[in-house]
Amino acid sequence: MTPKIDRFLAERQPETPCLVVDLDVISANFGALRSALPQAEIYYAVKANPASPVLQRLVELGSNFDAASLSEIERCLAAGADPSSIAFGNTAKKMGDIASAHSRGVRLYAFDSEPELEKLAVAAPGSEVFCRMLVANRGAAWPLSDKFGCSAEMAVDLMIKARDAGLAARGISFHVGSQQTEPGAWQAAIGEVARIFTALAEKGISLDLVNLGAGFPIRYRDEVPDLPAVSEAIRTGIARAFGNRPPALMIEPGRILTANAGLIRAEVVLVSTKGYGERVRWVYLDIGKFGGLAETMDEAIRYALRTEHPDAETGPVILAGPTCDGADILYERADYRLPMNLKAGDKIDILDAGAYTASYSSVGFNGFPPLREYYL
Amino acid sequence: MTPKIDRFLAERQPETPCLVVDLDVISANFGALRSALPQAEIYYAVKANPASPVLQRLVELGSNFDAASLSEIERCLAAGADPSSIAFGNTAKKMGDIASAHSRGVRLYAFDSEPELEKLAVAAPGSEVFCRMLVANRGAAWPLSDKFGCSAEMAVDLMIKARDAGLAARGISFHVGSQQTEPGAWQAAIGEVARIFTALAEKGISLDLVNLGAGFPIRYRDEVPDLPAVSEAIRTGIARAFGNRPPALMIEPGRILTANAGLIRAEVVLVSTKGYGERVRWVYLDIGKFGGLAETMDEAIRYALRTEHPDAETGPVILAGPTCDGADILYERADYRLPMNLKAGDKIDILDAGAYTASYSSVGFNGFPPLREYYL
Repeated sequence: MTPKIDRFLAERQPETPCLVVDLDVISANFGALRSALPQAEIYYAVKANPASPVLQRLVELGSNFDAASLSEIERCLAAGADPSSIAFGNTAKKMGDIASAHSRGVRLYAFDSEPELEKLAVAAPGSEVFCRMLVANRGAAWPLSDKFGCSAEMAVDLMIKARDAGLAARGISFHVGSQQTEPGAWQAAIGEVARIFTALAEKGISLDLVNLGAGFPIRYRDEVPDLPAVSEAIRTGIARAFGNRPPALMIEPGRILTANAGLIRAEVVLVSTKGYGERVRWVYLDIGKFGGLAETMDEAIRYALRTEHPDAETGPVILAGPTCDGADILYERADYRLPMNLKAGDKIDILDAGAYTASYSSVGFNGFPPLREYYL
Repeated sequence: MTPKIDRFLAERQPETPCLVVDLDVISANFGALRSALPQAEIYYAVKANPASPVLQRLVELGSNFDAASLSEIERCLAAGADPSSIAFGNTAKKMGDIASAHSRGVRLYAFDSEPELEKLAVAAPGSEVFCRMLVANRGAAWPLSDKFGCSAEMAVDLMIKARDAGLAARGISFHVGSQQTEPGAWQAAIGEVARIFTALAEKGISLDLVNLGAGFPIRYRDEVPDLPAVSEAIRTGIARAFGNRPPALMIEPGRILTANAGLIRAEVVLVSTKGYGERVRWVYLDIGKFGGLAETMDEAIRYALRTEHPDAETGPVILAGPTCDGADILYERADYRLPMNLKAGDKIDILDAGAYTASYSSVGFNGFPPLREYYL
């Protein structure tokens, strides 16, 4: 992908499978995102790629961090992040983890229910909180279901309770779903948030923060709206909903900062057919669903592939992972085509794989080790 | 589940989530399986639970081993297994891994394609091989799709090629899919195998091994046929297909040996609703799809649960894991009910979780550590 990665692969010939990330691409992505949405504070979604070199680079760039767990908070701190730059964004946290985060200086927390609010009031007294609102995820490649967020009506009541419990009621968050390809999704959600702001203002609570979540789509195999289209939709949505009193904005990007910074180099283990006269070949790679490609679940994320035979004639394939698990199939319906002369031992690169890969690897399902990682 | 596990939980109060396995249950399962199918050699499917204490116990019991990777072979050897007791059962192997297995003394290999056969002839010369035949997986809770095996017609040709390449053509394997609830599935496959035996006998190749795979169902939440029903179907199928010249049999059980030997102790992180007047509560546990419960994918495996409130009134719930991933939902459609008084901090036991759990855990998705394991 980048000259640095290609040089590393050529010179080091690393054992496969492995993830290779060019940190300079993350820097470029961070700059582009900041330019596209200058009014928003960036909180990097650590779960996308929690590797220390990534976190260190983002600390240098002045990023804030959205952590899903106490362990992610500790990784950020170890990478040099200031506690004031960290939000504990998971809406379901253990009381002990909240207390530990608070004792380390974390002062911004997400919640979406009264029991969670009660934990925060006890274990993180006086902290700033935002309530996550449930929104529709249509248009997202990796939807968030209804797992996070509460109704707008409940969010209003919870923010009042937050204030009454001595917490600083800062604002409302939402998430339109990962790989959201309809910019209108952000606008619809922003409109709902503004109505919550108005309802709370009438109760004497003045919110000042909208957490826009993330979901900014990146290009894998298929075209998606570009960042300017999304940022324009957000800008318009904020102006329409809040007029000349815009709130502070935060975003929690993960994929858009790290995905295209890395590739996974894999190896073909076997190319075969199951019977005579079959047109579709089975291609078995040394990485699969349980080795880092979890986002191929339901063929949701469709990675672009690169082989050593760019000009060869291609034919249809089913792509599978190396385990003896029948569910370890990457793509069966997504119309992948690979060179007709592909064979065992050939290298194959899975592109734009810098996000949501290595940290998903199993500890050793079928005895295969976790994904090796190199950060350049 | 067992007094030993309950005593451990009460005395040690281990940090959750954790898997606790009673090795004596594995011994009992091994004995029961040997009694039910005395004519079959047991090759334990290491992938089901590759923990060293499990492998050591099975070595003591005289088990053989079905390994999916070189690393699993090494684990078996480290646990004291003799190389002659190990089959390399993955049909897609790297050439170097075959050579390493061969150098360690492994002499029995699976394959289902000509390219794989060519690798075996080079890297494991003279070894015994069996060809995996593709069969329908109807009736299986965790089906194997068409990922493994070839057509019967191709299997015949491949066995001739195996002999011609200097390999010992031993027999045919198949797998009816994990958690197979229709005993007739084994009978249908055995009939197909017998036809391959006949076709090859006419070409002067005398096979003597049928690898029945596994798929023996265990009881999770729902009733399944018991082991005697399955073994009777197999016995009848073999008698019908092979008459008074029965072949040697091997089986590759995993789940039926280890699943009911363990439970996962988890903790409730949050119980909430998303809006007013909702009947279904969301229950967030400290373990989810990426922490060891991968087999809840598509709600395929439905674990029985045990709470500290056995007599409490129950109500419907959606069960979710602790990560900020919308796909990390365990059960949404499977009609789970839990006590109305369930609350954050309560313990919850996921029963019959000794197989296909710990080794599936991610290395640290969302910062959550891999599943802790205790073997008693």
